[in-house]
Amino acid sequence: MERIIIDMDEVMADTMGAMMAWYISSYGIQPDYSRMKGSWMLGIPEEHKETVRKHLYSEGFFRHLPVMEGCVEVMEALNKKYEVFIVSAATEFPNSLRDKLEWLEEHFPFLTWRQLVLCGDKRMIAGDFMIDDHVRNLVHFKGKPYLYSTLLNKDETGYDRIRNWQEVADIFL
Amino acid sequence: MERIIIDMDEVMADTMGAMMAWYISSYGIQPDYSRMKGSWMLGIPEEHKETVRKHLYSEGFFRHLPVMEGCVEVMEALNKKYEVFIVSAATEFPNSLRDKLEWLEEHFPFLTWRQLVLCGDKRMIAGDFMIDDHVRNLVHFKGKPYLYSTLLNKDETGYDRIRNWQEVADIFL
Repeated sequence: MERIIIDMDEVMADTMGAMMAWYISSYGIQPDYSRMKGSWMLGIPEEHKETVRKHLYSEGFFRHLPVMEGCVEVMEALNKKYEVFIVSAATEFPNSLRDKLEWLEEHFPFLTWRQLVLCGDKRMIAGDFMIDDHVRNLVHFKGKPYLYSTLLNKDETGYDRIRNWQEVADIFL
Repeated sequence: MERIIIDMDEVMADTMGAMMAWYISSYGIQPDYSRMKGSWMLGIPEEHKETVRKHLYSEGFFRHLPVMEGCVEVMEALNKKYEVFIVSAATEFPNSLRDKLEWLEEHFPFLTWRQLVLCGDKRMIAGDFMIDDHVRNLVHFKGKPYLYSTLLNKDETGYDRIRNWQEVADIFL
């Protein structure tokens, strides 16, 4: 069975969408999306960054993220055909660890704790395929990498892209 | 730089020692060490297992484990010579996740969150060397495996063994 490594934030979970919704409702202004190259923090005014960062580190933030459209159904099918591991860069956020496990168990009851990996760096992760929105995670991967498109990585080149879960299904199922 | 993958429980942390000390002080009797082949739960009477399991799953249990003798000093030297990742099978225990991160940060301040991996299964972990007390983790590893000796794995054969952190130093430094 081939092994597929799937990222959580921005691929399975709409982390940035949740953060921006919270930001807009907290400050009553729009972030500057045009400046968010590489990091969405670049679109937030300097004086708001500490509060935003606090929210990101708070207990519960990663527990209540929306699931990307089509992700559950496609993941369930992938899980029958592949050895699936969900690998999330999470150890930077101590409160996210349990939140991410519970989020996965709630929305993806067909996956188990055996399939979740919470790490910082992903360079020691091996598999046949990797879907991730960060080039820094894909660059070390020995299998076939796919860049999951987000606003933040739109200028990256050199990787085959996946734009949504329908495309995951088209490629892998 | 060669990559070394190091297990946490029973290798860096004396998890079983802490559990047995708690058991003995709670029940006033010794566990049956002679029956603990593969799992220390086999040395606990049936009627105590649920309480013991609850203690294992409780918040704080993995936060306050003793560090194995010599581990800090040798780890600090390893960390200068190798790419070190601490890989712990932890997602079975939701409360252990943050506890393990904080434990690592307290006792090993020279390591960072980038070097910690909290997972269930370890089959997707790649590196040059792995030190682990479970054959089930070593068996999939493509690099050189070392079995860290514990009471529970004493009958296992087929792996080079490491018995303590002095031996880690002798082999790797």
